[in-house]
Amino acid sequence: MSQEHLIRVARGLEPADLLIKNARIVDVYNAAVVEGSVALAGEHIAALGDRPALSVLDLGGRYLTPGLADGHIHIESTMGTPASFSRAAVARGTTFVAADPHEIANVLGAAGIRYMLDQTQLSAMHIFYMAPSCVPASDLETAAARLAAAELAPFLDHDRVLGLAEMMNFPGVLACDRDVLEKIAAARRRRKRVDGHAPLLTGPGLSAYVAAGITSDHECSHPDEAREKLSSGMHIMIRQGTAAKNLPDLVPIVTPANLHRIMFCSDDRHPYDLCSEGHMDAIVRLAVEHGMDPVMAVIAATHNPARYFGLHDRGSVAPGRRADLVVASDLKRFTAEMVFFGGRLAAQNGTPVEEEKHSRGQNAPTAIRVDPAALSFLIPAAGESAHVIQVIPGQVLTGRATARIPIKNGLAQADPASDIAKLAVVESHLMTGNVGRGFVTGLGLARGAIASSVAHDAHNIIVAGANDDDMRAAVLAICEMGGGMAAALDGNILETLALPVAGLMSEAPMQEIAQSLTRLIQAARDLGVTAPDPFMTLSFLALSVIPHLKLTDRGLVDVDSFSIVPLFV
Amino acid sequence: MSQEHLIRVARGLEPADLLIKNARIVDVYNAAVVEGSVALAGEHIAALGDRPALSVLDLGGRYLTPGLADGHIHIESTMGTPASFSRAAVARGTTFVAADPHEIANVLGAAGIRYMLDQTQLSAMHIFYMAPSCVPASDLETAAARLAAAELAPFLDHDRVLGLAEMMNFPGVLACDRDVLEKIAAARRRRKRVDGHAPLLTGPGLSAYVAAGITSDHECSHPDEAREKLSSGMHIMIRQGTAAKNLPDLVPIVTPANLHRIMFCSDDRHPYDLCSEGHMDAIVRLAVEHGMDPVMAVIAATHNPARYFGLHDRGSVAPGRRADLVVASDLKRFTAEMVFFGGRLAAQNGTPVEEEKHSRGQNAPTAIRVDPAALSFLIPAAGESAHVIQVIPGQVLTGRATARIPIKNGLAQADPASDIAKLAVVESHLMTGNVGRGFVTGLGLARGAIASSVAHDAHNIIVAGANDDDMRAAVLAICEMGGGMAAALDGNILETLALPVAGLMSEAPMQEIAQSLTRLIQAARDLGVTAPDPFMTLSFLALSVIPHLKLTDRGLVDVDSFSIVPLFV
Repeated sequence: MSQEHLIRVARGLEPADLLIKNARIVDVYNAAVVEGSVALAGEHIAALGDRPALSVLDLGGRYLTPGLADGHIHIESTMGTPASFSRAAVARGTTFVAADPHEIANVLGAAGIRYMLDQTQLSAMHIFYMAPSCVPASDLETAAARLAAAELAPFLDHDRVLGLAEMMNFPGVLACDRDVLEKIAAARRRRKRVDGHAPLLTGPGLSAYVAAGITSDHECSHPDEAREKLSSGMHIMIRQGTAAKNLPDLVPIVTPANLHRIMFCSDDRHPYDLCSEGHMDAIVRLAVEHGMDPVMAVIAATHNPARYFGLHDRGSVAPGRRADLVVASDLKRFTAEMVFFGGRLAAQNGTPVEEEKHSRGQNAPTAIRVDPAALSFLIPAAGESAHVIQVIPGQVLTGRATARIPIKNGLAQADPASDIAKLAVVESHLMTGNVGRGFVTGLGLARGAIASSVAHDAHNIIVAGANDDDMRAAVLAICEMGGGMAAALDGNILETLALPVAGLMSEAPMQEIAQSLTRLIQAARDLGVTAPDPFMTLSFLALSVIPHLKLTDRGLVDVDSFSIVPLFV
Repeated sequence: MSQEHLIRVARGLEPADLLIKNARIVDVYNAAVVEGSVALAGEHIAALGDRPALSVLDLGGRYLTPGLADGHIHIESTMGTPASFSRAAVARGTTFVAADPHEIANVLGAAGIRYMLDQTQLSAMHIFYMAPSCVPASDLETAAARLAAAELAPFLDHDRVLGLAEMMNFPGVLACDRDVLEKIAAARRRRKRVDGHAPLLTGPGLSAYVAAGITSDHECSHPDEAREKLSSGMHIMIRQGTAAKNLPDLVPIVTPANLHRIMFCSDDRHPYDLCSEGHMDAIVRLAVEHGMDPVMAVIAATHNPARYFGLHDRGSVAPGRRADLVVASDLKRFTAEMVFFGGRLAAQNGTPVEEEKHSRGQNAPTAIRVDPAALSFLIPAAGESAHVIQVIPGQVLTGRATARIPIKNGLAQADPASDIAKLAVVESHLMTGNVGRGFVTGLGLARGAIASSVAHDAHNIIVAGANDDDMRAAVLAICEMGGGMAAALDGNILETLALPVAGLMSEAPMQEIAQSLTRLIQAARDLGVTAPDPFMTLSFLALSVIPHLKLTDRGLVDVDSFSIVPLFV
């Protein structure tokens, strides 16, 4: 029995499987560094100190820290499956994450969550989940799935589910929506966590939100906002992702006295960032660059999320804890040179050492169902001027514009010369034939079309184009792949990225995904697109809960009035 | 629904039940004090800040802290039932405790634990339990109960049971005893805590003990011992009880960096200490006297135990937390002037404000069963010299002595002139008729007899006397009360304290218990007893797991060889 082996190794009665010596060990309990050895037995740490061992690793004074952890991530945003993501993340020192499978849940409901849970068996590190709290995000689009409290509760009993995921519906909390409160109560009854999501919420609204049982927030963008949330009893996850980058603003709030309430998270991390900059290692580096004490940064990235989620078997270099460990030469410029997961060397110099555990193409759920016959992008002109969604570079918010639209044979046309493209959202899961149509400015699209089956949060196919034929070509290419992204010109497909798993993810290695995406972005650039990240920008144009103007399969959404509005002025 | 009320009060849409204003609030998240108001709704805090309210309490700048918590206590040591204890404790600011019902479990097994759990319904504050891990303490006495892993596991599922109580059997852990490891595993499977008890354990033994899954220790007596245990991953409960007083030695180990691993506990708190000095309030005062920052001391006494035990609904003054609160004028000389429990004023100036919830005499289990006919204290002389247990003042340890014993008609006699009393342990639960007999020196007993049905850990009746008749009278008096303590002289009973609940506890108010005990101790003094606390001293003379020489119902125990040994040299 492994528990007995562990005890006997600790006592020195049986040899350790591995002795890591000459280590500078980060002691998360005292925020200190101590020199010494660590003896491993099976998946666990048996002891600090020298012990007889079957093999010895001399670190020559390098640092040894607990494995890194991401307090909140949507794995779907990496475009890799959990198995694929896990290899990229463990290579950078991540040994567990708390993921919110919100995107796949919007597409496939409970079956999507079950797939994500099944995938944890194939993971190169530990993936835990939070049960998605807000599916669908709104009623202003055709949602493929709906998870009420009754559907969600069974997941909260799962050992790999640590609580309720970010409660984005804070108006619902404040209004005492019965289903919302029941979801929160279900998590609390099980003494599990309830993550929050409440950007800029303050004063009485914040009190009410916290009083309802929300235990964390990762949406702080201002120091004072974070301080108020801290003092209100929330754990603060400092977020530094591909889209939202809050760390530089929030590092100054951290003190030795409140460190125990601070974690890091990435929220959304795109494949090229993951492959180039890294994952939590990049966040630790950045925190130190911005003045955080390196040992404190390590504690926020390791011990604190383990404690927050009640995972007492990890998060420190101490007897009985999982041997999830990172070796680094320099805490100030933190790079995971060796990563141990469950006592085994999992990665070295940024590369996983073990083969993939997953055989691709098995049990991966498909989701894209579109009737090509219903695919029309024609916009009958109902006026001379239309409301146009305005892209704001680097933001998820959109502006409102109005513009005169060229009309041909009674049909409204794109106007590339004025940077006005046609935009369409094609309902892609239920074969309803719904197509929402509108206009977007600020993309810079001069010709052709770009399309994506990643489009928050319902993930219907979104397409922007200079003409209907290229829009159709791009959408059909995506349908053929079972999901993904495409760029088309003159009826030809320039580049694609296949995301056949629920139309959101690929089973390919993260490096391949990143390379495909890079080619695809270059193709979009060739079509004239100037927006910083063309496909990420596109994917947020359908998100009907972020101001001000968005497009869903049901039409143009005025988010401020929370209603579908006419396209023409 | 109270959750909705809470949210609406937080938002200011409904009046708070109580607004506490002009408070200096201890912010446990930032180790700071902030001035402001706290709005209560039902049992909870709705918001920090002013809100409309049905009633207002102006603290005039007094401090407001979370309710105090005891990380480890044996309620039986207070001699009050949980209901009785709870009133004395809440009067001093305690709003929850994690109690180990080890004593009653030794007497009544699972039924004893069930009684203690039932009592939580009648409590004036929250009593949680840890499932007793070591019943019986040893096999060198007749144990009335035995709780193996299979009997214990069901209790771990109980909502009021927070984990496994102090694992005193550290040799069993180190030897990989199957039942011991199964008890630990049962708690860990439920993600509950496993408290430790490992005095002076260090090095490989400590590593093994922690590796086995033990999460805390309250037995540290030396700073270096505590530091090693901290760095090994244990939470440290600094103990300051009636018997063991470790706080002055351990305060220097606490730093802002490791504060989050520090709690306080009383372990054993006797009734007169509870009534005169107090409970956790006394420990906070003492910690500050010994140089601990007052806010840090409050955090260790409130927030940290709540976090350790996973009680996320309390332990801070923040929205959504239970309104378990203490008002104090001075953090440096901490006294609970007002105590709120679940939003209601529970105590003021050291006195509970509500009537007792319990009607006495109902469902309290009895335990004492002795056959008077079997009650013999005769010691046939098997030699001229006997091994004598030597009391060491203020210690639970005993010394070994040998002495020539007066012999009359072939029977060994007490020798009060040489401070040698007869000592007997009468098996008191199973009617076995077992009586263990021996001698004790160092009590100072000059005449008469003193007896107690509190005798760790089996709690058979222990009696010390100058003559057999008074020993018999004292024991019979205890049997008549169904348990308790007595002093006898010349066949008359001088004083008694009735402990009819399992022979360990009284349902009387703590003040009455303390007064009876004071009279009883005076009676023992009148009999010549010089030991600092005559009945506490007596109660440890049967504890067969503490060196060096003890007496059980089966005879004289040499603890060092862990065996029954002959009385005569």
